[in-house]
This record gives sequence, C-alpha cells and structure tokens, in this order.
Amino acid sequence: MAKPTALSGFPEFLPAERFVEQQVIASLAQTFELHGFANLETRAVEPMDQLLAKGETSKEVYVLKRLQDSGDGDSGMGLHFDLTVPFARFILENSGKLDFPFRRYQIQKVWRGERPQAGRFREFTQADIDVVGRDTLGFHHDVEVARVMAEALGGLEFLPGFRIQVNNRKLIQGFYAGLGAGDPMKVMRLVDKLDKLPVAKVGELLQSDAGLSAEQAEQTLALAQISASDTSFVEAVRALGVTHELLDEGLIELAAVIEGCSSITDDRIRVVADLSIARGLDYYTGTVFETRLDGYESLGSICSGGRYDSLATDGRTTYPGVGISFGVSRALVPLIQQGVVRADRSVPSAVLVALTNDEGRTQAEAIAQQLRAGGTPTEVAPKADKFGKQIAYADKRGIPYVLFVTENGPEIKDIRSGEQFPIAPATWAPPPADLRPTIVSTASQENK
Amino acid sequence: MAKPTALSGFPEFLPAERFVEQQVIASLAQTFELHGFANLETRAVEPMDQLLAKGETSKEVYVLKRLQDSGDGDSGMGLHFDLTVPFARFILENSGKLDFPFRRYQIQKVWRGERPQAGRFREFTQADIDVVGRDTLGFHHDVEVARVMAEALGGLEFLPGFRIQVNNRKLIQGFYAGLGAGDPMKVMRLVDKLDKLPVAKVGELLQSDAGLSAEQAEQTLALAQISASDTSFVEAVRALGVTHELLDEGLIELAAVIEGCSSITDDRIRVVADLSIARGLDYYTGTVFETRLDGYESLGSICSGGRYDSLATDGRTTYPGVGISFGVSRALVPLIQQGVVRADRSVPSAVLVALTNDEGRTQAEAIAQQLRAGGTPTEVAPKADKFGKQIAYADKRGIPYVLFVTENGPEIKDIRSGEQFPIAPATWAPPPADLRPTIVSTASQENK
Repeated sequence: MAKPTALSGFPEFLPAERFVEQQVIASLAQTFELHGFANLETRAVEPMDQLLAKGETSKEVYVLKRLQDSGDGDSGMGLHFDLTVPFARFILENSGKLDFPFRRYQIQKVWRGERPQAGRFREFTQADIDVVGRDTLGFHHDVEVARVMAEALGGLEFLPGFRIQVNNRKLIQGFYAGLGAGDPMKVMRLVDKLDKLPVAKVGELLQSDAGLSAEQAEQTLALAQISASDTSFVEAVRALGVTHELLDEGLIELAAVIEGCSSITDDRIRVVADLSIARGLDYYTGTVFETRLDGYESLGSICSGGRYDSLATDGRTTYPGVGISFGVSRALVPLIQQGVVRADRSVPSAVLVALTNDEGRTQAEAIAQQLRAGGTPTEVAPKADKFGKQIAYADKRGIPYVLFVTENGPEIKDIRSGEQFPIAPATWAPPPADLRPTIVSTASQENK
Repeated sequence: MAKPTALSGFPEFLPAERFVEQQVIASLAQTFELHGFANLETRAVEPMDQLLAKGETSKEVYVLKRLQDSGDGDSGMGLHFDLTVPFARFILENSGKLDFPFRRYQIQKVWRGERPQAGRFREFTQADIDVVGRDTLGFHHDVEVARVMAEALGGLEFLPGFRIQVNNRKLIQGFYAGLGAGDPMKVMRLVDKLDKLPVAKVGELLQSDAGLSAEQAEQTLALAQISASDTSFVEAVRALGVTHELLDEGLIELAAVIEGCSSITDDRIRVVADLSIARGLDYYTGTVFETRLDGYESLGSICSGGRYDSLATDGRTTYPGVGISFGVSRALVPLIQQGVVRADRSVPSAVLVALTNDEGRTQAEAIAQQLRAGGTPTEVAPKADKFGKQIAYADKRGIPYVLFVTENGPEIKDIRSGEQFPIAPATWAPPPADLRPTIVSTASQENK
C-alpha cells in the first residue's frame, strides 16, 4: 500500500512518547490503589439508548454497524464517549456482586464521533476515580476524591503546577434562589460561559435571557468572582447579603472540601474555592471540580467531576456517587507534541550484548539471559557488525551500556563516558537510574 | 433505567477478576520489556480499505458511523480486528522515525463484528510481540519471538502447562511440491482441517479436491503426523523420501527454532515441531506457531503467529517481520468464568483504618496517609459503625488488617488470626505477601 497518513483526531505515539504515557498511567494507578480504589475495565460499547440518555453529547457518538449486518440485533450499539455512563450501567448490572461504598478507578480510551477538525480528539484516554454508595454516600468522600486526584496529579513530576478549582452546586443554586432568580439553572449555565465571554456580556445575558434585574446580575457576577485558597470565601459570600437554606448547605460543604485539602503540602498543587465553576452537565448535585494546568490554561479543564446524587438508579435503589476524571490525552498530547516531555530511550533495553561473530550468538543470548534474570532489560545485537556500528546501534536508541565478550570475559562499556570494565553477568546490574528509560522534561523551566 | 443485562460476546470482569487480568498484562509486559520490546498502542480504528485487504475477516468488521453523519469524511473507518494490520500501517506511516530491526509489544482490545453467539467474543484483548526489519530480517528473530513468548507464558504461574507447536511453511510447501502436488496451497489448507475433520476424511479431500493420488495423500498425511520435541523430526521427514530445495530450507529453519528453544528448563513449557500446523492466513512465509493449553485443548490455539516476509510494503521498501500473538481473553475468560483463578481480595487495600467516632476521621486519615507513604494500600472506614461491623466490612472485601486507634496508640489486628499488636504507622508495613491481592489458582491441581 502507499504510505498512509495520520488520521485527524486519533493521536498515536512513537515508542519514546508512549513510554511517557505508560509511566503516567502506572503512576496514576499506583496512587489510586494506595487509596483502595480497585481497577475496572468496561467494554467499549454501550446500547445507543444509554448513550443518548444524556442529550448534550448525543451528536458525538460513533455508532457501530456490522459489515454484514442482516438486522439480527447488533444495531443499536455505539462506542462510549466517557467512562461515567458505562460505570453507572456496570453498577446497576452487577449491584448484587459489589460491596458498597464501592471505590473504583478506570483508565480507558473513549471516543467522540466529531467532525474532523484541528485540536479535537476523536479518540482519547481518560482516568476516572469514583466512589459510589447504595442509597447514601457520606459527604467525606467528596473530600476524598479531591485529595486522591490531587495526589495522583502531584505524582506526575514532569507536569507543571496545577490548580484544582472547587465549587458547589447547592451554594450557587441556593444563592440564585435567595436572590430571587426565576430560573437558577438558566443563570448557572450563563455563568458557566464566563471563561468564554467577557464579564459585561454575561451580565447582559443574565438580564436579557435569565430575566435578572441589573442588581441581581451584578450580585451574580460578584459571587462568580469570589475565589480563595482557604475558607475566607465564606465571609465574602456572606458579605453579599443573600440568604438561603441551600446556600448555607453549600457553603458548609465547600468549606469542608477546602479545609480537607489544606494539609496538601506539595507547592505545585493548589486547591481553591472558585465560585465561577459550574460544569455544564446537568447531573451534578453538590461539589463540582475543574482543574487548570499552569501555562496551559488554553487546554481548558484537564480534570473535572463532582457529586451526582442519582446518576444510577434502577427504580428501586439509587446509587449516589462522587467522582473526578483526568483527561490523560488532553494534558499529555500537547506536552508530548511540543517536545516538553519525552523518554531518553526508544527501547526498554539498558544493555546491548555485542556480537563478535555470528557463532557467538548462543553465548551472547546466554549472557543476556543472565542479565535479564537479574532484572536488566537486555537485547542482543541483530548482526555481528563492526563494533563501532554496534555501539552506534545502542547510541541511536539511547541504550546506555554495551557488553563485549572479550578474551578476559564479559566487559561492559558505558557508552556515555566511554568507561569499560569487566563484570559478572549473573550478578551485575546497572545503577537503578539506568535500569529503565527516564522521562526528560523541560516543563518546570518553561513554566516558572 | 431498568437493570441492564450483559451483552453477549463482550466479557467484563468484577474487581477481583479484573485484578487477575491486570496481573497477567503486567507480567507479560515485564517479560517483553526485559527482552527489549518497546510498547506501542495504536488507535482503535483503521480505514475500511485496510481492514478489507485481507479477505478472510472482512465480514467480521465493525464499521463506524457518526450519529450525525453528513458525509464529511468519517465514513470508511472500522474497528481493528487484530493488532497486526494496525502495526503494519504504523510501520509504513512512521518508517522514517523508527529504528530497525524494530521490536514492539502491543496489548490491546480488538473487535470482531460477529453475529452474537455463545462462546464467541466480539471484544477481546490480545498481546502481540513482533520484530520487523527493513528489507531484511535475520532468521534468529524467529527463535527469539518463540523464546520470549514461551518465557512470558511461563511467567503466568497459574496457567496450566502448554505446548508451543512450531512448523515451517517452506518445509510443508516444499514437501508438497517435491511430492508433485499441483496446488501446494490447496493441500496446505486441507491439512489445516486435521483438527476438525477425521484423518480419513482429510485423506479423501486431498484426493477429490486437491487432485492428489492415494499415495501422495498418504505421504501428505504421514508428514502431518510427525511431531517431536527435538530435531529427530528431520530424520522422520527424510525417511518419507521426498526431496525439494524449499523442503531443505524449511527443515533447517524448523530445526533451528527447536534447537534454539531446547534450553528452556520450565517443565510446564514444551516447544515441539508439529508438522500438522499450517495456519490459515495466507501471509506467513516460513515459521508458523500455535499453542495449546493443557486440559483446555478445546479452546484451540491460544497463541499463534509466524514469519511474514512482506506484510508491510509501500512499493519501494518491504518490511519483513516475525511475530506471535497471545489471546489474553481467549485463555483467561474461561479460566476466570470457571473459577479456576481469582484474586483473594476485591480491593487493593491491605489495611482498613477503623473509626472510633466521626470526629476521629481526620486522625484516621492522617494515619492512613502514613501507611500509604510506606507503600501500603489503605482505606479508612466509611462510617463509625460498631467495630464488629467495621471488621466485617474488611472481611467481606478480603482486607487482611484492621487498624484501631486505642488509648495506647494505633494497634493492628490481623483479622485472619485475630492477633492484635501495637504499631508505628510511619514505619510499619504488612509482610510482602499481604501487601497486594494474591492470585488464587486451582489450575495446577485440576490439570495434573
């Protein structure tokens, strides 16, 4: 076939780039498991009626069709566009076999059947954590998911700093209701446009579209401008003079999340109350989260979520949950494409065993196997080329060591320093820092 | 929504089952990386013309369609049905950025748009390794992929024993040609039916369909019955009295693979020359592999592959390769569904920190965080229930330890033995065997 070209919206990585993604996923998984989250993987497809239940994304679904479809039941399936809808379905399907509260993490690809256009992913990876209860779920889990995700993102050392912005639906809905707004949801959706439209424009829309008075619109915008890294936001909201029972509840909950995250000491991580955050999707009922990456604000929120008190229900039992989803591809693809992060090798190998001649392959393989048994990724040269060419083979791939079988036995050359020394393959291993590829990052310099 | 039911052909695992799959994938990846194979992940979709290039599977492709398709270029994509077609495309697309010979492993889901029926997967996971060269690829890589996959499968300790059956297309095609068969490919495809049809029936078909004489058919069947765990098969083939240049080449290559695998010492792994193995797909040109799991022969081959001298070509450059693909789902789903393997916990947590009262949560969280810092997966009880109920919570999930904050400081109870002792959370860790869930297997007993 002719040389194929990349498909817009379906990012793929070269080996040294994929290594970064692998490490990110392994690091996230490790943090999630330290906090007792069990891994799940759900199938890629869901019935279309499930996928269409949430109106907003219905036009972005990929529908599946068997090539030889004869109308025998496969129609009506589509690829999932997030990990929440499949998880809610999984909970209902397996509720009798799960123990609640149920903590799970899920790191998988999702698909959006978008029109091909620059910057839009049609296939991408998300990493979700959720805690789900049966009938009830303690509020402290809202604090838990925020802390766990902050710790997980903090563990990605090459990431620039980030800001987790927390708000609470009860707080803002209560405020709008206390203000006398006729349609609090409408107000909320207009406030959600603050990161796309100028403040004055949103103020106009609040009057023209949501029927607020000039003073009510002003109060609404004043609320959205409150932001604090401690619980001082409570005073600031009170100072606006609006009262409502739901507002009180929301203030207590939001203060508890901020308070609960105050013991995080990593100075790359800031958890702030930001009263402009609303989240477009309708199902959130309390805490809501968004996250901005320092220096990459144009990416939008890379990590979002919240509390949903009735996402899953089978009519008799309701499963309330709280969760947060990190857009692995959204954060990683730009960093990798801009060359901000990459691995220093294109192969896992730490050692290349050189070949003196073709007859030496059996012995070279035996030595390689001894190194592997000690945990050192090792490959044997493909050909008994001149040693200079074999060293160039290692150098090109970033393999730090070349082993030669000499008259005096096996010797290792560190091709960075040129140093060469005898070793016993059964016991030698490279220093830990050389054992696996390392992620090289310029993010910290560029963004400080 | 009403309680959903499982979709036929799309297996999903509960957390304790998924843990087994996770461990299998981690163990395979570790072996592949020890041998210098770099990981790749390709997008789930390929252009339909690529997927249809191989006629045999064309009817089993899932075609994608955007829900709101207006004919703007998304049509013509389908989900990949294996990892070889996407890999060949990736090689051509990125040939200028890759170093050859290129070793990669790929562990991903694939999809087949099959009619729903019992025992047929429509979504499943495969683990592939391949080595690809530019223009040429040394034969020793045939030995390499066999050894690496044998070692990878050998590392799955809960698997019963298995038999890797190796043959060589040159050997059998040369034999049929030396025999005077008019259409060696036709003969090969009939011989490939030996595991489904009785020998006598295949003998008849060789005469009626492939135009062999009774004697030629007998010789063909005699060849297919040769099998040996050492190179003695060479003598057995020679004894049939057929000669051909291609046959000689094939005998040398197959002997080299068997010889090269003779140093494997794990007695669960047998690598044998089996001259009945042909592999249906047309693109193999030399070595071919199949693998049977002891006691699960009805699953068919769980791990197959071979040498393909021209799978990828852009007209100017040809990329020969050799690879082998392990059907992770094919082997694992039946073992898990029959309860042969499972994890002994449904959560990663090794410790549950009990709550004396709701006010104790902050302190409990701080203790949990100390344990996590030492690498111990830990969760805090969701509620300050009676201690008996909190212990039952741990027991139900298989969490071995419960930590109580007593007057004398933190104490750990091993709930299996009932033993309770004081600990310092900053330094204590459970014994390594309790740190993570363990895979419990009954396979070795059942299959011996």
